[in-house]
Amino acid sequence: MPAFEPGDPDYQRRVRDSFARQPFMATLGAELAAVTPGRVEVVLPYAEGVTQQHGFFHGGSIGAIADTAGGYAAFTLFPAESTVLTVEYKINIMAPGKGERLVAIGEVVRSGRTLTIVRVDVHAEAAGARTLCATATQTLICLAGRSDGPA
Amino acid sequence: MPAFEPGDPDYQRRVRDSFARQPFMATLGAELAAVTPGRVEVVLPYAEGVTQQHGFFHGGSIGAIADTAGGYAAFTLFPAESTVLTVEYKINIMAPGKGERLVAIGEVVRSGRTLTIVRVDVHAEAAGARTLCATATQTLICLAGRSDGPA
Amino acid sequence: MPAFEPGDPDYQRRVRDSFARQPFMATLGAELAAVTPGRVEVVLPYAEGVTQQHGFFHGGSIGAIADTAGGYAAFTLFPAESTVLTVEYKINIMAPGKGERLVAIGEVVRSGRTLTIVRVDVHAEAAGARTLCATATQTLICLAGRSDGPA
Amino acid sequence: MPAFEPGDPDYQRRVRDSFARQPFMATLGAELAAVTPGRVEVVLPYAEGVTQQHGFFHGGSIGAIADTAGGYAAFTLFPAESTVLTVEYKINIMAPGKGERLVAIGEVVRSGRTLTIVRVDVHAEAAGARTLCATATQTLICLAGRSDGPA
Repeated sequence: MPAFEPGDPDYQRRVRDSFARQPFMATLGAELAAVTPGRVEVVLPYAEGVTQQHGFFHGGSIGAIADTAGGYAAFTLFPAESTVLTVEYKINIMAPGKGERLVAIGEVVRSGRTLTIVRVDVHAEAAGARTLCATATQTLICLAGRSDGPA
Repeated sequence: MPAFEPGDPDYQRRVRDSFARQPFMATLGAELAAVTPGRVEVVLPYAEGVTQQHGFFHGGSIGAIADTAGGYAAFTLFPAESTVLTVEYKINIMAPGKGERLVAIGEVVRSGRTLTIVRVDVHAEAAGARTLCATATQTLICLAGRSDGPA
Repeated sequence: MPAFEPGDPDYQRRVRDSFARQPFMATLGAELAAVTPGRVEVVLPYAEGVTQQHGFFHGGSIGAIADTAGGYAAFTLFPAESTVLTVEYKINIMAPGKGERLVAIGEVVRSGRTLTIVRVDVHAEAAGARTLCATATQTLICLAGRSDGPA
Repeated sequence: MPAFEPGDPDYQRRVRDSFARQPFMATLGAELAAVTPGRVEVVLPYAEGVTQQHGFFHGGSIGAIADTAGGYAAFTLFPAESTVLTVEYKINIMAPGKGERLVAIGEVVRSGRTLTIVRVDVHAEAAGARTLCATATQTLICLAGRSDGPA
């Protein structure tokens, strides 16, 4: 992965504030972990409320944290006054989401003025071992000059 | 869309039972609407708990009901003793998820013995008008001989 | 599909000129068929040079005409002085490319100022019958103010 | 990337034979480079016949070698008597295909009995420097018991 210079030195606070303003992340019980330039981790602890009919993490919860980790990985590199929208993502689910928690790691592959491309891997952690359970690629758009925050 | 013959005449009950056993759908507040051979609708009423930082439906909640509508559209055509897994999906988010509810409509495009391809459109309904807010294509695998239900 | 107004009344000529300047289309033997606002057809007649090891149309040739039909469907709606780039596409290949010719039909799903989303279906024609052999969704970007033509 | 054991010790010859039987690769002028378990490189030297209207490698030629490198990366791990089909792929084109040649590198991410997931990066080489020009993820299916070769 290339090394990135954040355009906004205050990128950490901006990402953490935005994440905290997403009610859906609280509904899931998802937590923001490491935030560095071009890279963001989101953790989802196991809870019955995010599972499917076999007791594993629901594909929709895997996709939701992948989308979020990827979006904020892009957002770390955006200018101070901007917001981020997902254009599209594609996710391959390769193994059942079994374990105590999921860890989604989004890493910017290409950072452009308008579009940013991110790769996201989602790992399932069980008894200290990690299994790659899903991989995604995502396209994000930077809306410069538009606030991410409340009016 | 082609017309499909369900392999299991009891497909309706099988799909509704399975949906009811997904705790994540209850967490979202999502509801199963029309279920016909090769076609399933899932509705997500607006609630603050499924929104992002701008007050719109979170992309992760859009993706979650798209994945679910598509998976069950495929499942309508599967044999009685089988379960369904998402192999992958790709979703383009084309408009903000604004409105009173989202309606995800999954329709089978190709039904094979092992793999099924589904197209899913997600509409946002506001004041009686529908806006196409996302479109997805999804690949599902049929695990024949494996139960979808509790042990 | 929605009805579209082309921004440039001369869109037909602009699309046909651009297609004619793509050497790769001549290498494939691909032809531009119907061109209407938001919709473009590309035809690929069978030739041994575009096949794979089983004598069917190669997946790469299916993808190439899908990408091209989709790109030009978007381009019909762009301003006179602009060019088009593919951001990404995803294609599901659902049936072998068997027959006398392939017909790729690109149709714009959402037309934005910067990004356009297109759906492309690729049909294989054999003995007068059409089989849906692939379906794609594609994201295109409009580079306004940049010429599509030679310097 | 994980280390893989090929199921067929003669995997090299099987892959090279199959590639040589694809007329479309000869049409493009593509060459098979390194072939190791779970990893395949395909090289496409610059030629006017594979370009688009701006003189760069056509997106369709980028997609074609990505699809081929990925398919053969999967095929290295398949049993002796089998063939490979692309289920789907998604490709992000991140930079123009400019330079003397393209190098597509397919690497298996997950190898299953039925489905294999592959990541493919396509680099453009110009004056000795490599630029990542596209990245893809692909799903392949193994048709066991079916010959890849001529009748």
